Amino acid sequence: MERLQQQIDFILEIDKLKKVIRQNYLADGSRKESDTDHSWHLAIMCFLLAEYANNDIDVLKTMKMVLIHDIVEIDAGDTYAYDKNASDSDKTERELLAAERIFNILPEDQAKEIRALWDEFEEGNTMEARFANALDKIQPALLNDASGGKSWIEHGVEYSQVLKRNERTSEGSKELWAYIKEIIDKNVVSGKIINK
Amino acid sequence: MERLQQQIDFILEIDKLKKVIRQNYLADGSRKESDTDHSWHLAIMCFLLAEYANNDIDVLKTMKMVLIHDIVEIDAGDTYAYDKNASDSDKTERELLAAERIFNILPEDQAKEIRALWDEFEEGNTMEARFANALDKIQPALLNDASGGKSWIEHGVEYSQVLKRNERTSEGSKELWAYIKEIIDKNVVSGKIINK
Repeated sequence: MERLQQQIDFILEIDKLKKVIRQNYLADGSRKESDTDHSWHLAIMCFLLAEYANNDIDVLKTMKMVLIHDIVEIDAGDTYAYDKNASDSDKTERELLAAERIFNILPEDQAKEIRALWDEFEEGNTMEARFANALDKIQPALLNDASGGKSWIEHGVEYSQVLKRNERTSEGSKELWAYIKEIIDKNVVSGKIINK
Repeated sequence: MERLQQQIDFILEIDKLKKVIRQNYLADGSRKESDTDHSWHLAIMCFLLAEYANNDIDVLKTMKMVLIHDIVEIDAGDTYAYDKNASDSDKTERELLAAERIFNILPEDQAKEIRALWDEFEEGNTMEARFANALDKIQPALLNDASGGKSWIEHGVEYSQVLKRNERTSEGSKELWAYIKEIIDKNVVSGKIINK
């Protein structure tokens, strides 16, 4: 039973991800979403939108990737995408320590699988990682737009920051990037994203 | 672009599932969990625990099933498992109407796929549906135990109700049922579940 106990210990540990709150709001603007809200949403988007990936993807692998991609934030916290003060080097270090601690609660074979999925997502060099990254950027943009640009306005987000953040979105899906770029541009015209 | 727009409309519609709150608490007892917290948790449990299914399962299909299984609660609401006043016939009717409305926002092929997955889950006749059902019962029991039996105590839950609710859990996984049965029995001994 030791193997099963390690798996259950991990399942209980990652319950903490439900308490990590992101900066973007739900579509109705009523509250900010959690990392688990976000990860659930990405997993469903993954199989519904897989047809738009630039090349064929392994859907199961990509779903696992988006479901686990934020788990390191249990220890490392959520860094807001447009926070100018956040130190990226610090964040990387904190996330690596978190990955070591949390994934290794699992039996060795599964710890290795999850770590490899997370590394692949972070490196962004495979079609699966690129599509997962595209979903990770598109989902908050959809919610921001639906909520009337609430978190863009709150944080005074600039167009150049949004474009910089999305510089690799088209590597996952040219079609989804074209769709979301139109939404972003509409929010620049309406002043919800600052035009600079 | 009509197909993509239907898919995006569905993705935004199901954002509402983040606001459907269940009766069980997070492991630390700090708040009740949402349907999306729960569905995310089940999807990860699905691929980590698939080795315990009584027979081989299609992991991708089972993950899709657990990710979408509660979407009908956007319209139908969450019915507490141990609510003696809840009318099951009413619930079924409300959920069928919800499935009709929500899944049909998608393009026809995907609406059919999701509806078939949901029907399969509800009918519980395939190995995938049985394993998904087992996870759906095991996850709240793990969280209830971790939180000190908080929602069992709040609702005065009885042992016979827990056993009735879990009457098909072993059809998904004999090993996981044996593990969780021990946890349930421990909570009967400690008085968190009423022994009758």
